This record gives sequence, C-alpha cells and structure tokens, in this order.
Amino acid sequence: MSATVYEATTSAPVNIACIKYWGKRDTKLILPTNSSLSVTLDQDLLRSTTTSRADPSFTKDRLWLNGKEEEIKDGGRMDNCIKEMKRLRKVLVEDKDPNAPKLSEMKLHIVSFNTVPTAAGLASSASGFAALTTSLASLFALPLNPSELSLIARRGSGSACRSLFGGYVAWEMGSKPDGSDSLAIEVAPRAHWPEMRAVVCVVSGEKKDVGSSVGMQLTVETSPLLQHRIKHVVPMRMQAISKAIKARDFDAFAKITMADSNQFHAVALDTTPPIFYMNDVSRNLIALVEEYNRVCLQKTGHLGAAYTFDAGPNAVIYTLPEHMKAITELVLYYFPVPPAPEERTSQASAVGFYDVLNIFPEANGKPTGKLVEGFNEEKLKKWGTGAVKGVIHCKVGDGPKILGKEASLMTAEGTPKAL
Amino acid sequence: MSATVYEATTSAPVNIACIKYWGKRDTKLILPTNSSLSVTLDQDLLRSTTTSRADPSFTKDRLWLNGKEEEIKDGGRMDNCIKEMKRLRKVLVEDKDPNAPKLSEMKLHIVSFNTVPTAAGLASSASGFAALTTSLASLFALPLNPSELSLIARRGSGSACRSLFGGYVAWEMGSKPDGSDSLAIEVAPRAHWPEMRAVVCVVSGEKKDVGSSVGMQLTVETSPLLQHRIKHVVPMRMQAISKAIKARDFDAFAKITMADSNQFHAVALDTTPPIFYMNDVSRNLIALVEEYNRVCLQKTGHLGAAYTFDAGPNAVIYTLPEHMKAITELVLYYFPVPPAPEERTSQASAVGFYDVLNIFPEANGKPTGKLVEGFNEEKLKKWGTGAVKGVIHCKVGDGPKILGKEASLMTAEGTPKAL
Repeated sequence: MSATVYEATTSAPVNIACIKYWGKRDTKLILPTNSSLSVTLDQDLLRSTTTSRADPSFTKDRLWLNGKEEEIKDGGRMDNCIKEMKRLRKVLVEDKDPNAPKLSEMKLHIVSFNTVPTAAGLASSASGFAALTTSLASLFALPLNPSELSLIARRGSGSACRSLFGGYVAWEMGSKPDGSDSLAIEVAPRAHWPEMRAVVCVVSGEKKDVGSSVGMQLTVETSPLLQHRIKHVVPMRMQAISKAIKARDFDAFAKITMADSNQFHAVALDTTPPIFYMNDVSRNLIALVEEYNRVCLQKTGHLGAAYTFDAGPNAVIYTLPEHMKAITELVLYYFPVPPAPEERTSQASAVGFYDVLNIFPEANGKPTGKLVEGFNEEKLKKWGTGAVKGVIHCKVGDGPKILGKEASLMTAEGTPKAL
Repeated sequence: MSATVYEATTSAPVNIACIKYWGKRDTKLILPTNSSLSVTLDQDLLRSTTTSRADPSFTKDRLWLNGKEEEIKDGGRMDNCIKEMKRLRKVLVEDKDPNAPKLSEMKLHIVSFNTVPTAAGLASSASGFAALTTSLASLFALPLNPSELSLIARRGSGSACRSLFGGYVAWEMGSKPDGSDSLAIEVAPRAHWPEMRAVVCVVSGEKKDVGSSVGMQLTVETSPLLQHRIKHVVPMRMQAISKAIKARDFDAFAKITMADSNQFHAVALDTTPPIFYMNDVSRNLIALVEEYNRVCLQKTGHLGAAYTFDAGPNAVIYTLPEHMKAITELVLYYFPVPPAPEERTSQASAVGFYDVLNIFPEANGKPTGKLVEGFNEEKLKKWGTGAVKGVIHCKVGDGPKILGKEASLMTAEGTPKAL
C-alpha cells in the first residue's frame, strides 16, 4: 500500500427519456440513429455511486457491482471505458505535468452500488456508466466538461451520456463517423424548471425476451416505419420539446412525451419478430393517465401528467407538484403495492422502493371515496396486490456529484465495504 | 299477403385481412386510405345468413338481427344500402322490363343471423353486409357481378366488400372521388390454393375502448407513421402478397401477413391517445406462433403458421393442413378452453365455438408429452382456463351463396323464425 490514497467517489443520476433513443447507426461506437432527450431524476432514491482507486499495489483492474465482483472483459465496454480514461489521464495530465503521479500506469479497483432496484429495469446501466466516468475523471483530475465526458460514458451505454447533466438533457446524434459530435448537452438546468416530478411505477413482468441492445438493432434491420420516425418525426419533436422545456410549457411537454413513448413502442411492434415491452398493467397505467388528463383538461384546460415507458413494463409518470397526491392515490388504488419484504437486500428496497407507502398508507388499494372528482372509474380495471411492485417519487435533479471521503465505498484494502 | 312471395336467402362468409384496412380518406363513401387483402373463410361455422322479402303489405322497411328488431336509421348505413339496392332495381330491372314486379316500391323485411360469435369481435359486420347485399341483389334479380356488388357492401361496412368473393380477395382503394373504383377483386379463387387453413382463437378481453370506425380516423388524424405506411409500405406489400398467393408460397404469405398485422397495431399505438387491441394473451399467442415457426424453420426450412389480429384481441392463425394438429394442441395446452356452456344461446356456440374440443379433447390444458419436438416451452406462459374462450377451425372458403327456400329465416308473416 502506498501512503497516498488516490481515490474518488461520485454519484450519478438516472435519466428517463422523453424522446426515445432506439437504434444505432454504429454499434461499436454507440452512435444513435436519432437524437434523444431526457429528464434527469434526483438522486435521493435512485442513483449509482462509484468509488475508484488507483494504487501501485493493485495487480489488475477489478470491478465490484453491488458487492459482487464482475469480470472486466478484455475489449468490452467497461474495459474500453477504463482504457480511454487512462489514455486521457496520460495525454491531458501526465504528459503535461511531469510531477503528476502516473495513475495511468496503475491498476484500478472500482466499487459501484446502484440504489436503482435492478429488477426494476430502470436503466441502472445509464447511471452506472455515468458514475464510473465521473469517478475516473475526478480521480484522474481530467480537465473535461460534462459534454466531453458524455462521449466516454456513451461508449459504455448509449443513454449514460445523458446522465452527465442534471435537468433537461439532449443527446445530439451528431453526424461525424468517429462519433466525436455525438454527445450530451444541457437543454435547461434543473433550476430552470424545478417543479417537474416523476412518479415511477415499477411493474411486475416476465423477464424481457429481447434486451434493448439486441431489440433496437432488430428494429433498425426490419421496421419499415423506423426510417420515417428517424428522418421526419424525431427532428421535429426534438425542436418542439426543447421549446416546451424552455417555455416551461407542461402541456406541450406532456403531449410530445406521451406520443414519443407510444411511437417508440410502435416501431418495436413493427419489428420482425415484434417486440413488446408494455404489458396489460402498462396499458392500464396509460389509461389511468389518459383519464386523469381528460378530467384535468375539462377542469383547467391543462394536462396533469405524462406517461413514458422505456424498454420494459414500468411507467414513469411526469407531473407537477399539485398533481402528485392525486396521481399517487390513483395508482395505489388501482394497483395496490405489497408491503416491504422482511428481508431488505439493498439500500433501494430499504428506502426507495416502498417510499410512497409511508406517505400515502391509506391509499393502498382502498377506495378513498371519490379519488378524483369526475374520474371515470370504469376506464381501467382494479388489479390485485403486486401488479405494481412499488412506486417511487422523484424530482428533476442535478447531474453527477463528487462526494467526500466519508462516502467511499471501499475498505482500506480496496474491496467493497459491507453496507 | 300477396300470393307470390318475393324472397331471397343468402349466406356470406367472414374474411380476415392479411394486409389491413385502417383509415378512410372519405368517411361518408367509406373510401380507404390504402388497399387491403384478405382470405375468405369457409361458411361451415362462421357466416351471416340473410332472408330479404318485399311485400306490398309491409308498411315499412324492417330489420331483425339475431332475432332482435333493430332500428333502420334514416340516412344510416343500412338505410343507404337498402335505398341504393332499390334504386338499382328500378334502373336496371323495372325501367327496362315493364313486366317486372315493382319490388323497388315495396317495403322490405330483412332477417339476418350471424353464426359468428358476436362477442368474438370476428367482423360480423363484414359478413352481415355482404349477406344483405347479396340477398337483395338476388331478390331484385340485379345483373351485377361481385365486384359491382362490393361497391354497395363497402358503403355498409368497408371490409364487407371483401366478403363478396371467396378465396383470396383484394379491396383496391381506387382513386376516384366518387368511390366507383374502390371495390373488391378476386386475386385467386379458393380452388387455386385450397390448403389454406385458419385456427381462430377467441380471446377473452375487456370491452374495446375504441371501435374500429372511430379508432381508424383517430389514427388518420394523429399518427405520423400512418402516412408512411399508406404511401410506401402497403403498395409494396399488396404486390408481394398477391405474388405469394399466386405462387402458393406460404413462407412469403406468412411473413407479410404477420408483419402487416404488427404494423397495423403499431400505427394504432402511434395514435393519440394510443389504441391497444391486443392484450397479454394475444402477445403470448404471437410468441406461440413465433416459437413454432422457429422450430419449423429449423426442421424444414419453412414457416408453419402466420398470426394476424384485427381490431381486437383474437388471433387468427393461418396455416396448412399438416400443421393443424400441432397448432391446435399447442393453443389448447397453453390456453385451455372452457367446456361448452349449459345454455347455448346461438348456433355459433352450439357448433363452432367449441368445435375443437370435440376433435382434440385430450389436448385441452393437459401436457401431451412433447407437444412439438424442439418447442421451447419457456417461451410463453401457461394460462388458466378461459383466457382463450374457444378455438374454431376454418378453411379458405367460397363467396356468398344463394340458398333455397328451405333455408328461409322468415315465417309466413315476415318475421324471424324461431331457431
């Protein structure tokens, strides 16, 4: 063990796309067929935290994910990401400053924890690669801004690039063959529109037949509709939703978000063989939001909520503070969630997953009178307990955070701390 | 009562589209946004039968559907259809032959029965309007061929025009504003490819939120993807599937049929608000066919089956005789059907609906050993009894049939016979 500990710990957020990324034009460089746009969620409940340490005593690069050591495959995405960061350390720091410690020549130990319920399919690879990239950038003291770092995170997992910023983030597809202009930019910071909220509904479902990496390329290869989406629909929507965000126009934001979620699932369905990520519970969550919006429109002339679904059955419902209670009560009424399990195996299940039950215990599966006046209760069916496994409240949040030494996930020996 | 009875009874088939009709460019004339193509099913189990009678003693046009009198709304589709047939009677027959009885001036009684399970959502309006049109054409002795009659059936219910022919039928969208070239043509008669079979799986589902008439216009108004489908995808597929039918190429037929079913549901999902007709049972029926095809491809290099879904959760699985047993056993294994109800309220439930249980009683919900060698049983889940309510076997069939007096559905008084 050397006397000086070279270590950095950072956390990075989850992001949920409003304009969906679906399709790569270059699978090696992870260059998308269209631009996308997301909202970054706060890190209170959902985040990835990563501690990286460089030490001359380490004999190889090692990685522990949620306490379990994972193999770093030679030439795999993780390996490429680490190599690129080491290269940048050498070129940008060590070559310029002969006194800088030669961290690029040391082996790394990396410990990462997700408080994103893994089973939830809430894109923990995005927050994970964002946390890794930020952690290494901090360890290596790289003079790079988030857009520049997003280029590296992107090669780990495409949508990870959007987790390098807080607030409202676009991943510009770029046009260069080397991918150097395919990066994340900030459309608006969190503080520009801090009222945005997300009600994350974690839906029970069978294991996905088709993962998103394989699925999106099947769509690229076989869907006649995808080309139209890429060329004609997404460019217009990117402009329109950026404008909506800048104007804090929730109605426009909601309409585009729902339409683009549906269109993403439409091109998945237009794939041969067809890909389904939503199930009957997802469909009923859409019906819930549609009916809630009908009531809101009638009462106020404005929409109250917007659903969006990634490559899985979970709904993320974007809304504003004044609708949080009604939306949550409606979800818990139609989809009662189970109590927290006796055995809590992760930070996530301890704090995040069942969070809402502490806030709205009375709403869970029990009729709370007229939940929302004018809401047509026949519009969807009431499900048994567990169709929705948990509900998580989030706000729009900030980008990756550099944490202090006290947040280290590593023991003195460079292995994961017990949590 | 006059001494001579002017009466005609005909039956007409159901047709199931392989290239889907979804969208009207003229809602009054029922002119579609794209051409479509279907297979006509045999009339053994599924059909509409209609008796029409003209009598000077009748005081108004009256209609009984499945034994229940229905109002003929002034200016409605039924009324328009009857008026147009009377006009043609006058112009084509009575004006030319002064001895022809003036049936066009008499009121009509029309009695129609569907043996199509109404709840099944198996397009009984198509067979119904085809039977009505054919019955009136027969009663009025109109010198019109099926394509000409299809123009009138089309105005009753768009897809009815395709039920005027047996075998393989195209509805050409036409281009004239008056709709005079938007009609059905025979692509190939039944006898050209008589091996085609259909396994109809009637799926339990909630009542449709959005009927197809309203739904398709919502898609026309709001789906960005529909225009691409109409202009670029369907014209190519119409050519390709006609060629496949002419060549009796089941592989090509199956690929196009499945892709077009999926694309129709994709544009429905791309609608605002989104329209869902398939449910989790439908998705599992797709998984069944996909897995069966995977096995067939591996063993023989050819596909064994093709699913297609109309505006509802029911699957129609097109296949060939050598696959009927395997497909049916797989469906009954994963989706056991309930026994026939004590009370049988229609001809349909008596003969058609539970037909398959008489043929394959042992397959219903019971593991029959290796159902199909190499079939990965994990690819879909096993459902409880009743998720699929019934399974019906059909062959490709003939067009409308003119039936003898003994088939009349009418009493001497011109009201429905008890069945």
